[in-house]
Amino acid sequence: MGSKRKKIRKLKRELRVLRAQLGEKSAVSVSPLAPKGGFPETAPVSGVRLATAAAGVGYAGRTDLMLAELSPGTTVAGVFTRSSTRSASVLDCQTKIGGDSTAGAAIIVNSGNANAFTGSNGQRSVSAITGMVADTLDMPEERVFSCSTGVIGEPLPHDRITSRIKELKAGLATDGLENAARAIMTTDTFPKGAFREIVLDGKRVRISGIAKGSGMIAPDMATTLAFVFTDALIPQSVLQDMLSRQTGPTFNSITVDSDTSTSDSLILAATGQSGADASAGGKFEEALHDVIADLALQVVRDGEGATKLIQITVTGARNDADARRVAMAIGNSPLVKTAVAGEDPNWGRIVMAVGKSGAEADRDALSIRLGDILVAEKGWVSSTYREQDGVDYMKKDEIEIGVDLGLGSGLARVWSCDLTHRYVSINAAYRS
Amino acid sequence: MGSKRKKIRKLKRELRVLRAQLGEKSAVSVSPLAPKGGFPETAPVSGVRLATAAAGVGYAGRTDLMLAELSPGTTVAGVFTRSSTRSASVLDCQTKIGGDSTAGAAIIVNSGNANAFTGSNGQRSVSAITGMVADTLDMPEERVFSCSTGVIGEPLPHDRITSRIKELKAGLATDGLENAARAIMTTDTFPKGAFREIVLDGKRVRISGIAKGSGMIAPDMATTLAFVFTDALIPQSVLQDMLSRQTGPTFNSITVDSDTSTSDSLILAATGQSGADASAGGKFEEALHDVIADLALQVVRDGEGATKLIQITVTGARNDADARRVAMAIGNSPLVKTAVAGEDPNWGRIVMAVGKSGAEADRDALSIRLGDILVAEKGWVSSTYREQDGVDYMKKDEIEIGVDLGLGSGLARVWSCDLTHRYVSINAAYRS
Repeated sequence: MGSKRKKIRKLKRELRVLRAQLGEKSAVSVSPLAPKGGFPETAPVSGVRLATAAAGVGYAGRTDLMLAELSPGTTVAGVFTRSSTRSASVLDCQTKIGGDSTAGAAIIVNSGNANAFTGSNGQRSVSAITGMVADTLDMPEERVFSCSTGVIGEPLPHDRITSRIKELKAGLATDGLENAARAIMTTDTFPKGAFREIVLDGKRVRISGIAKGSGMIAPDMATTLAFVFTDALIPQSVLQDMLSRQTGPTFNSITVDSDTSTSDSLILAATGQSGADASAGGKFEEALHDVIADLALQVVRDGEGATKLIQITVTGARNDADARRVAMAIGNSPLVKTAVAGEDPNWGRIVMAVGKSGAEADRDALSIRLGDILVAEKGWVSSTYREQDGVDYMKKDEIEIGVDLGLGSGLARVWSCDLTHRYVSINAAYRS
Repeated sequence: MGSKRKKIRKLKRELRVLRAQLGEKSAVSVSPLAPKGGFPETAPVSGVRLATAAAGVGYAGRTDLMLAELSPGTTVAGVFTRSSTRSASVLDCQTKIGGDSTAGAAIIVNSGNANAFTGSNGQRSVSAITGMVADTLDMPEERVFSCSTGVIGEPLPHDRITSRIKELKAGLATDGLENAARAIMTTDTFPKGAFREIVLDGKRVRISGIAKGSGMIAPDMATTLAFVFTDALIPQSVLQDMLSRQTGPTFNSITVDSDTSTSDSLILAATGQSGADASAGGKFEEALHDVIADLALQVVRDGEGATKLIQITVTGARNDADARRVAMAIGNSPLVKTAVAGEDPNWGRIVMAVGKSGAEADRDALSIRLGDILVAEKGWVSSTYREQDGVDYMKKDEIEIGVDLGLGSGLARVWSCDLTHRYVSINAAYRS
């Protein structure tokens, strides 16, 4: 009896050690960094109808198909990955952006298969899907945008999608944003949505958006999949300019693992149904920024395995490009990210990342902060820094790293997350 | 009794699951990729004497100090990190390379503290150490090179080093290369050495070398710490040219985690004691390449947490720079590295890395091989590829990824390793 009790104690101790090594108290189902309030309160955007379905493309027992129908007159803007191996659907969308808006538009999205590196078959799949949507919704195929996200290099079973289009049409409704957000998830642990409402020229204007993404996140001039809808009235070229402007400080300023997807797409549709002309930007562009930035940050908050959100602010660089280079070098450094995972105020690794970034930097002009705590300056640890302050600070869920290069007025801010055992587990697991 | 037995079985099952998640059957003491034969057979290089000591700089119960005394006439070449936050000892070495060789030279190395980002104190530590070595060995301080490796940002307790110099001098001997390799280890799991002997103009010429490094490995124009000795006779400028030429395809072509150290240094010393003039390069430079490449590969083989060595060969690029860009994008991709850890022939992630590299690439001209297996070509999976072949191939310890871009004749080869739970464990652990 006694020896068995001892054995149990010993096994329990071993379990505790291994769980600590894995950084896991128990299985995590939702990212600990998910917005506390859950999916945000939203209201319908006039001219937008949504539907979802379970097509079994890559997952069983969940929805994996989303259709958005956009009313006649909807202008559509988009930014896409610059990857030279981008997917068939991205290539197709890029040719269609900027087309005639009179007939309205539609966006069809599947998760579970990226339809990337699938050769000419990939293009055939896109045509089959967009053709079927065009026929069913009675609009030109040139106005149907398709997006796919999931595994790369496997043929897309597009018949599973085309056979669901009628069902999707029947299900179109003005609400259902959260369901749409769920249908486009891959390794995401929570659905991502954002909503803003403003009054413009006395008219109520709404902006809603959804996004997906959790790994392979280092958007390059674009983003993981995200869709933003507004009922503001904006010509396509103005809409595209606004979107391109807002992508830099939002989706192009986040990184989970430095790996850029073949499918990154951010599509913004303006139905004009509110009757409020938002061409001038101003208040509307501010609200648009808020929605897009909100979505981008949620993608990092759901970074694969993430337990800490890292905000990196670089000031005093010779120029903004140098500031961004430094910020991204810190945000992508496996050694900085593992130190954050281990709650270690290992600022030496921040120094290392600054040094390797390729940006102009002067060891003795550099200063480093963790939150408000001045950690290092003048080429060495700060005289006011106490290690215990750093240790306490690192226990927070959200870590702010501040670097001032002391050389000029260039600045940049990026968001990243920590690198944990769970990231390795998720991505070493076979084709998950 | 029965319920306790059940409880034990349940706990044991849980332990197995967690161990599998950690990818650990048991604690690994030596990298599974370490050279099978252990430290290589070596013979003394004339004009080189070595000694080691335990100074307690950062570790207890092991040697952490290495001194090399080099005979009068020794020419010294070096390549160093281009990090803008490089260490005090690197800055000092850079001013001394190329000096007058008549008085000989010395190299003193400590592990456990990098003396990096330690402000003006760092320079004072270097002076104290090199001054004491110069006095003790009776040579000019300008001929004493010091290197430090370990934690960044903590003051170097240099008195622990200076108090050991007399002991080191007394211990100088013509053998002891393996002991020297052990003294410079940090998170290394095995000492790294290489040796070649050639006959030049009827004279026996030897080249021996040691290196350390396991994490923060993405050398930039240089390397982690490595020291190479030869008794060939070579003027300093010729020696420097040879070293610079050989660094590109060796140390500058390896990566463990894309993070570049503040301390990278590769020092090559030629004592001339063999009397064989090696200025013409040729056979000597070939042997030198072999020694340096051997050391570089051993560093990757000891990559933190590594269980697989990855060799990436890129051909058919528009130029060599593009080929290198693609090879490094693959070698540094966390998603490729975790797929290799999981033994997953997930070639879609290789496509992704090619796409994000920034190099010119054409999806439809690209082909990908795993060893001899043609996996993908013409923008899609190869018609001859069977998934089971890929699965079997990935079980190997050494994975060869071949990418042909089909555009030109540019080529590059780099070496990396997989990204495992152990990497996270090592680097999330407090200041280890």
